[in-house]
Amino acid sequence: MDIATFVDRSLGEWSSQRSAHHLAFAHFEEVRSTINIEALTVDAPGVLELCQRYEVAPETIVSPFKMSWEGESDWDEDQTIEGSTILVPVPESATTGKLLREQGYAETMESAGSYCLTEDGTFILTTAYERAAAEEKIWFATPNLRFRVSLIKTSSGKGVTTASFSSEVRRISIS
Amino acid sequence: MDIATFVDRSLGEWSSQRSAHHLAFAHFEEVRSTINIEALTVDAPGVLELCQRYEVAPETIVSPFKMSWEGESDWDEDQTIEGSTILVPVPESATTGKLLREQGYAETMESAGSYCLTEDGTFILTTAYERAAAEEKIWFATPNLRFRVSLIKTSSGKGVTTASFSSEVRRISIS
Repeated sequence: MDIATFVDRSLGEWSSQRSAHHLAFAHFEEVRSTINIEALTVDAPGVLELCQRYEVAPETIVSPFKMSWEGESDWDEDQTIEGSTILVPVPESATTGKLLREQGYAETMESAGSYCLTEDGTFILTTAYERAAAEEKIWFATPNLRFRVSLIKTSSGKGVTTASFSSEVRRISIS
Repeated sequence: MDIATFVDRSLGEWSSQRSAHHLAFAHFEEVRSTINIEALTVDAPGVLELCQRYEVAPETIVSPFKMSWEGESDWDEDQTIEGSTILVPVPESATTGKLLREQGYAETMESAGSYCLTEDGTFILTTAYERAAAEEKIWFATPNLRFRVSLIKTSSGKGVTTASFSSEVRRISIS
């Protein structure tokens, strides 16, 4: 599978159940959210800005998309978690590349991670931040069900502070 | 990685946080448990019985082990979940084989699943039951932290009814 196929299979609206395990305290957090993934054109405003900021030629990018989410955590039920961000894949080979991510208006930082797609169709993204590193694995169980395991690591990459697991079920439009 | 190495790395006592996602109802379940994994000898009583029942020559098995667990679910906090079972790997190649499992005294059925070990060190076990199928992926993030994703599928293998994720942290003996 290449990145264009992976993004294509991801487009749509998803109902997500996410469990986070805060390992040091053996604490659980539960989040329910709706995730929307939409294709963008290469010349969409946010896409071109990201290309410029990372000095990437727009003709080298593939399948830019926008991801937005809205949900609730059991840690703070009064507060709605919401945000959106633009993501831009920059392939380096058929199965590897960079993924640029816009700074969303929620908690996310701007970042450029490295992705690879394994033989069994798992998308693996690793992103280094100043004080931490993140690893994300996403794979499809069926066309309408995908899973995501996200690890927040110490910046050395050796320890894991939080592990979370999401089940994402496609919302089928019945109209 | 071969199965003997995988079992060897798994031996010990683990603190487990497990989140189950019951997908049809978007329901969460949280389980905290302690898991103990101990090596057994090839001629241990339960091991030889399993070999006989599945007509497997004892000289073809590798690294039999016993797994026991004790925990609590937030679905029924008054009840302790506990059980133990014997597991017997029967390699068919360096990275594939069968895994025989004794009927534990808790909920588990006797079964023979098929395993494979992927290049990145993930152990994948698939087991077909009469009315369902199970798929389990286990991998190590560090020598003292392993993750497990378990799917309960419909017997056709197409639908997933429950997805669960465990973070297992090794309990370090300080004595």
